[in-house]
Amino acid sequence: MVSELPGMTLKAIGIVRSDIKKSTRRDFKKVISEIIVDSSLTEALDNLDEFSHIIVIYWMHRSRGPAPKKVRPMGNPELSLMGIFATRSPNRPNPVGIATVRLLQRQGNILIVEGLDAIDGTPVNDIKPYIPGYDSVINAKAPSWVVKQ
Amino acid sequence: MVSELPGMTLKAIGIVRSDIKKSTRRDFKKVISEIIVDSSLTEALDNLDEFSHIIVIYWMHRSRGPAPKKVRPMGNPELSLMGIFATRSPNRPNPVGIATVRLLQRQGNILIVEGLDAIDGTPVNDIKPYIPGYDSVINAKAPSWVVKQ
Repeated sequence: MVSELPGMTLKAIGIVRSDIKKSTRRDFKKVISEIIVDSSLTEALDNLDEFSHIIVIYWMHRSRGPAPKKVRPMGNPELSLMGIFATRSPNRPNPVGIATVRLLQRQGNILIVEGLDAIDGTPVNDIKPYIPGYDSVINAKAPSWVVKQ
Repeated sequence: MVSELPGMTLKAIGIVRSDIKKSTRRDFKKVISEIIVDSSLTEALDNLDEFSHIIVIYWMHRSRGPAPKKVRPMGNPELSLMGIFATRSPNRPNPVGIATVRLLQRQGNILIVEGLDAIDGTPVNDIKPYIPGYDSVINAKAPSWVVKQ
């Protein structure tokens, strides 16, 4: 089953522009970035700025396979090895990242966002509106080893 | 830019098993499904059941391109045409879906979940833990034409 099905190839619909050039563990909450969307898709961004937040789906292009089955979350040596799917490690079978970010402004084919944890040059594959009630969970539980961000 | 970069090919890491065989607009909130993960990745699911909710990333394989730039949300003829990225329409440049669902149980390589809006046979590309504070937004705003789900 772990195989490439026909047609499961992602296109880049845009690219991240940011002052952050290297993958390092840091707090991205206040980082401002731009998503430059392909100009052929400018019209497809209409109405997006009616939402306060968007979900960005991106390709973690610096991730190198093969992905391990287990990792220590955040590379923390004090933590046990955990299943890769129980972590947000970029080094996973499909290096797809998702981030919920604040949409500060749309200028034509450029989205200015706050809180995107993707470095400069990251290919963007999809943008979705964040829909309260569908994407949000009240009282979701996570274990204590998860660093609240 | 709208092109295939080398290596942006998704693998199926699992498949959805559900009683829902056809794409129809319906409320999936109470739908119970199974995600059958490739048995080579069973160990990679360890610790996931410490989280109450997970995010499933899947390939909307019934979507047919080319994607339109604009659609009427939920196919509702009373709504204006909106940019495709401002909607959750499956017919988008990359037919990748994300759903936040309740994890009811893990049994080896099988995850039993509630609320997954993907039909039987949908390829699954990634599973991530839902992390409160990172994936949740307090007071996010959406326009009134969005049907709260």
